[in-house]
Order: sequence, then structure tokens, then C-alpha cells
Amino acid sequence: MTSLRLRRSPEKILLPLGFSFSALAAGIKISGRPDLAFAEAPDGASAAALFTTNRVVAAPVEVGRAALFSSRGRVRAVLVNSGNANCATGLAGIRACERVCRGVGKILKVAPSAIFPSSTGIIGVPLPFERILANLPELIAKRSASERGVHAFAGAIMTTDTRPKIGSSRFRVGTKEITLLGVAKGAGMIHPQMATMLVYLFTDVEATPGELLRLLRQASDESLNCISIDGDTSTNDTALLLASGASGVRLKKVAKKFAGALRSVCQSLAEQIVSDGEGVQHVIRLHIQKARSRDEAMAVARTIAHSALVKTAWAGADPNWGRILAAVGRSGIAVNPAQVQIFIGEQRVCRNGVACTFDERDAHRALAEPVCDVRVVLGRGRESAKFLTTDLTAEYVRINADYST
Amino acid sequence: MTSLRLRRSPEKILLPLGFSFSALAAGIKISGRPDLAFAEAPDGASAAALFTTNRVVAAPVEVGRAALFSSRGRVRAVLVNSGNANCATGLAGIRACERVCRGVGKILKVAPSAIFPSSTGIIGVPLPFERILANLPELIAKRSASERGVHAFAGAIMTTDTRPKIGSSRFRVGTKEITLLGVAKGAGMIHPQMATMLVYLFTDVEATPGELLRLLRQASDESLNCISIDGDTSTNDTALLLASGASGVRLKKVAKKFAGALRSVCQSLAEQIVSDGEGVQHVIRLHIQKARSRDEAMAVARTIAHSALVKTAWAGADPNWGRILAAVGRSGIAVNPAQVQIFIGEQRVCRNGVACTFDERDAHRALAEPVCDVRVVLGRGRESAKFLTTDLTAEYVRINADYST
Repeated sequence: MTSLRLRRSPEKILLPLGFSFSALAAGIKISGRPDLAFAEAPDGASAAALFTTNRVVAAPVEVGRAALFSSRGRVRAVLVNSGNANCATGLAGIRACERVCRGVGKILKVAPSAIFPSSTGIIGVPLPFERILANLPELIAKRSASERGVHAFAGAIMTTDTRPKIGSSRFRVGTKEITLLGVAKGAGMIHPQMATMLVYLFTDVEATPGELLRLLRQASDESLNCISIDGDTSTNDTALLLASGASGVRLKKVAKKFAGALRSVCQSLAEQIVSDGEGVQHVIRLHIQKARSRDEAMAVARTIAHSALVKTAWAGADPNWGRILAAVGRSGIAVNPAQVQIFIGEQRVCRNGVACTFDERDAHRALAEPVCDVRVVLGRGRESAKFLTTDLTAEYVRINADYST
Repeated sequence: MTSLRLRRSPEKILLPLGFSFSALAAGIKISGRPDLAFAEAPDGASAAALFTTNRVVAAPVEVGRAALFSSRGRVRAVLVNSGNANCATGLAGIRACERVCRGVGKILKVAPSAIFPSSTGIIGVPLPFERILANLPELIAKRSASERGVHAFAGAIMTTDTRPKIGSSRFRVGTKEITLLGVAKGAGMIHPQMATMLVYLFTDVEATPGELLRLLRQASDESLNCISIDGDTSTNDTALLLASGASGVRLKKVAKKFAGALRSVCQSLAEQIVSDGEGVQHVIRLHIQKARSRDEAMAVARTIAHSALVKTAWAGADPNWGRILAAVGRSGIAVNPAQVQIFIGEQRVCRNGVACTFDERDAHRALAEPVCDVRVVLGRGRESAKFLTTDLTAEYVRINADYST
């Protein structure tokens, strides 16, 4: 079991070469908070992206996917708005997104297909594209290759997030340095089947879009795709990996080290997203062990992570392992309850599918911590999965019972 | 669309011939409320039952299933305790359940396999079988073929239920009458895959166990299996149909009428269970229409009914149709969003997958009613499904965040 501390606030931000960032308040959010974020990459930058598996996808997902295809993975800029998802907005939503991309392309003097758009916020409301267009000149003019720029970007993509999510990593190869910077937003509707809400990874390594896609898939499968707050998969989920090549180092030369850095940044972002989930009081690190296959372990993890009864017990730091066992039993796996062991924190609370003596206060105390490990051993094979999830609190209900009204 | 009123309190109870009922407080519940219920059927009564599909099953489910098999569907008495699920209690739990059945059999002078046991309550705590055994003589002695007896039975099987759930139906054939009486408990962990929590159906029709099973399956599929409160499937779900034969009418002669009566009693119990769900403020009647198959319609219904985001929006009577559309999109069905229509109450709120003009106040008002219809038209085929579900409130979280502690 790992004992990674959940990184609640990012340490020093490491800036990859070649990128600049900016943000401002364009009036999309009623609150007047920053809601438009911009990042620029140099000519020749290459990119790969993963999108939501939801059949209902937002306009920027459709436009962004098509642009990546027609530009063959060449991305010169990222434009993200928060406060409006531009989803379920039909052809008008597509047109609005395309207009915005054209607007950015015009100022940067690049093709609209080199602009990667994202939106997050309420579904079904027309995107106020005129406000966005009107603010583009100022937004782009104020971009800078600075920590301040990154902070502004990270803040402007937030919706119900309470804090920005930033992670970075750097390693050396001879005299050269390679840097990877990740920025994300999360909060609700978090059960990515492909990528999480919005994740942007910027690096100065030199790589082809194909190389980037392979690495992004691998890293996501172990981090961004192993988290769940409420089991809802968003219509806008996007993870983008954008490489400037400005370090002058080819990915091939450092593939292993880079993959490690990418995994660690994605893992940090995943942890930040989960611990800042809507109304979250407790983060649970689920460890599903001795499954026949990783898919089986993931199915059990997801069933536990989506059980309202289990999640509400966690909200009360209640070591009610019977609900966990019941969730295992309905996960669709032909589990033999007599083989199942359940651990909360360091203690075994269920031995061979049956109650066993344990210190209830200790188990309660472990669950009352901000982060607690819950381990389920299936006794069926050698595969395992780690999955990060949360409790379900009355505060989550409060946040989501009046969002649009 | 049907406009069945949800029957919150049962009307007059109709008693089938041949049965007697009783209940008392045996001290299993800490609250001291009634927790032991008994029903007796005459010699020759036949029965069929449906059980949970959870792989983790309680001891009484195992014992009851084996008893029905070895007695070939002959049941002389039902014994239910609340306050303790006798689940995840291992071999000791099985033995405890068998002792209780032997105890009842001894008093009634019948084989233990003629006793049908059920338990509901907390998981993983040893069944206090000695308390049950000590109370059996008094419990059985006070049985009566009366409304009072039925009320006592219905009250003693409750856990977090706030009211008893009783439904009955009667029809005539010539000079004879056939009566069907149903008693149920529900409240939480309600997403039956086979039967609901605990449902007991008593009738005086004359039938074989095989005939009863076929009818029970049909009736359940349209009622008890079409409800969900929190998406959790219990380890103890049981539905029993017990026929005394005391009316002197063979089922074959009245099969259609009886099936109708069974459907209506099961539907009434399903509605009572949902409207008394833990913390429920609003019941939602989901109508999924124009699906390719009934399975497809059910998959969409379940995804909507289990979405935390959708259910919390309902708690706030928030006509946030975007969340419903997003749930449709991740239901695993190859739906084309441009074909999807969503209605809240009488109003269309989403046309062809896109926002359309509607009166938000009216939609809010419809959702604020105790029962509201939500209709999703998929535009893929001719099949449909009706599904009864609820909102997810802060009260649900409160109830479930401290159950065992």
C-alpha cells in the first residue's frame, strides 16, 4: 500500500519552456469571477487528447476532436471557458465554439484547427460567444510565461472547485531539463471513463502526437480513470497533453523517465480533484486485491465507490463493513463471500466474509482522518486496482440541489 | 401515462382465508419496538419465493431457499425478525436461523423445513436467537386471523420505515371470493434485482408452487423490480407468495383475474416502499419510451435513477434536464442525443437533445409535488419501461451516516 500524502496545495510550480498563460473575467459566470483561460504553445507543438465516453458530448469536445484530427495533432493554443458547458446546445453550440476558435486563430494568425477549445459549467444554456470574442484581444495580450499566468489559468477553469489544481515535475538528461506541468479542474460529475473533467498537461519534450497519446492513455488509466466522486461521467471530460519541444530533447531518449513524471503529475492532479470534490469530507483510497483480472478489481472498486450506502457511512466515519461487503456482492463478480477480507485503515474488520473482533473506535478514528485506506481482498487471483473516491455528505446534496435555480 | 395516486396509507385490509398473524417485541431492536413477526398458513399451503441476486446473502435467504426446495414449496409459517439481518454471520448465522425454525416447527408440530425465515436490519452482528426462542411460545399463542394481527405483523418487520406497507385485493368467482393480501417493508438499500426488501403475499387461492412462482415473477418484474431508492441491492431481499387454498378455488380457473390482483397489490406495495424511502421528499415516476428493447429502457431508467447529480437536482425540485441527458448519454446505450426528448410533468424541457423554451416555474412546481412524472423519449424503437424512484436528500445522508455507530 502506498502512503502518498494527498497534496492539497501545489508546491512550487515548474514551468515548461515555450508556453505562456493568461486569464480574465469575461462575464460568463454570474459571480463575476475569472472564467476565460488561455494557453499558447510555440509553432510546431504537438498534442494528444482523451475525451469523455459519454454519448452526449459538449460542442467543444466535438470541435476539439475534429480539429486535432484535421491538424494532425498540431495545437497552438488552448482556450477554456468556465460557467457554461456549451453542451446540449445543438448546431448553434458548435457554431459558437467554431467562432471562438476562429477568433483566437485570427489574433494568433494560425488556422482555427490549431486552437483547442474546452468549456465547463451548466448544460443547455447558449454559450455567450460574443462576450468571449470581445475579451480575446485583452486575454491574449496579457499572456505570460510565468507562475502568475499558470495560477490565473488554473483559477479561471474552476467551477465549484474550492482551490486550483496544479502539479509539476522536472528531470534532467545531461545538461538539459524536461519539465511537465499539469493543471486541472474537478469538483462534481467526476467518474471519468476516459479522462477527467478538464486536465491540461504542458511539457517541453519533443514528441509526436502518437507518442503523446500512448503515454497519456497509460498514465490516465492508472490515475485520472481511477477516481470517482459521484459516479456521474461528464459530457465535457477532456485531458490534453501538449508538447512544445522547446527543451530540445526527443521523447524517445527519455521515454521511461517522462512516463514516470507524467504518471506522478496525473496522480497528483487526480488526488487534488478527489480531495476537492463537492462536499467531500473524507477521501477513501480503495485497494482491491486478489482479483482474477484488473477489470474485475475495477468493477468491484466502482461498485463500492458508487454505493450511496457505503459513501454515507463514510461521511459518518462509520466502520459499517457490512455495506462494503454487500456492495462487493452485487458487483457482478462471482465472488465467494467466505474468501473476502475487508480492512479499514490497518485493521481487519471482516474475516472470510464474517464479522471479526476489531477495535471499533480505532476504525472510526481511521475513517475520520482526511484520507483513509480501505482494502478489500477477494481471494480469487493475483490482480489488483487502486481507486480514489470520497464520502457522500449532506453538503454534496446541498451543493447539487440548487445549482441552476 | 398512468395517473395512479401513490397510496400512502392502506385502505381497508382484506383478509384471505386460512392465515393468522401476530407480532411482539423480543428485544432485538435496541429501541424496544416490535421486532418479531409471525404468520401461519394451514396444512397444505403452497409457496414460491424470489430472493436477492446479491452474491452475499443472509443466512435466512440460504435457509429459506433450501427449505422451500426440500419441502417442495410447502410452507406452514413465516417468521420475520427486524433489527438484525443475520448476514455475514457465517456458519453460526446459519445455525442460529435453523434453531429458530426448529423452535417454531416444534411448537406447530411441523418439520423445520415448513418454516420460512426472514431477517432485516444491521449486517454482521450475531442473531440473538435465544431471545427469539424464548419469545416464540407467546408470539405463536397470540396469533389471530384479524386486521389487528396483520397490522402487528406489518409493524414488526419495519426498520427505518416510517409506516407499515399493506395492500390487498379481492375478486369474486360465482359465489366464492378470492383475496390477496400483501405486506412489505422497504426504506433503504432498495434496488431489487429480483424482489424487494421483504414482501409477503398471502392468498386463499389453491395453487401449485410452480404456478405461484410464474405469477410472482411476472408481477415482480413490472413492479417490485422497477423501483430504486439508492441503487443498493440488499443481501436479504425476499418476496414470498403463500397460498392457503382455503377459498376452494383453483388458480387455473381464475388465472387472469388473479394475475391482475397480484400485479395491483405488488404495484401498490412498490409505490408505498418508494414513497417511504429514507429521506425521500419527492417520488419520480420515470417513463422511458421508444427504446429498442425493454432491457435498453430499463438500463436508461436505472442510470437516471442512480445518478447522484440527477437525484440531488430533484431534491431541490430543480428542472436541470442537462443532468438527465448526461445520464442517458452514459447509460451504455448507443443513443443519438439529437433524437432525445425530455419531459418534466406535462412540459417538454429538451427537444432533440437541445434546450427548448419552457416555463421553468411550472417545471419547478411539478417537481416540487410529492410525485412527478419525468419522461425520456429515446427515438430508437417501440419498447418502454416505467420505473419508480426518488430524490436524494440531505436527510438520506443523515439517516445513513450514523446507522450502526
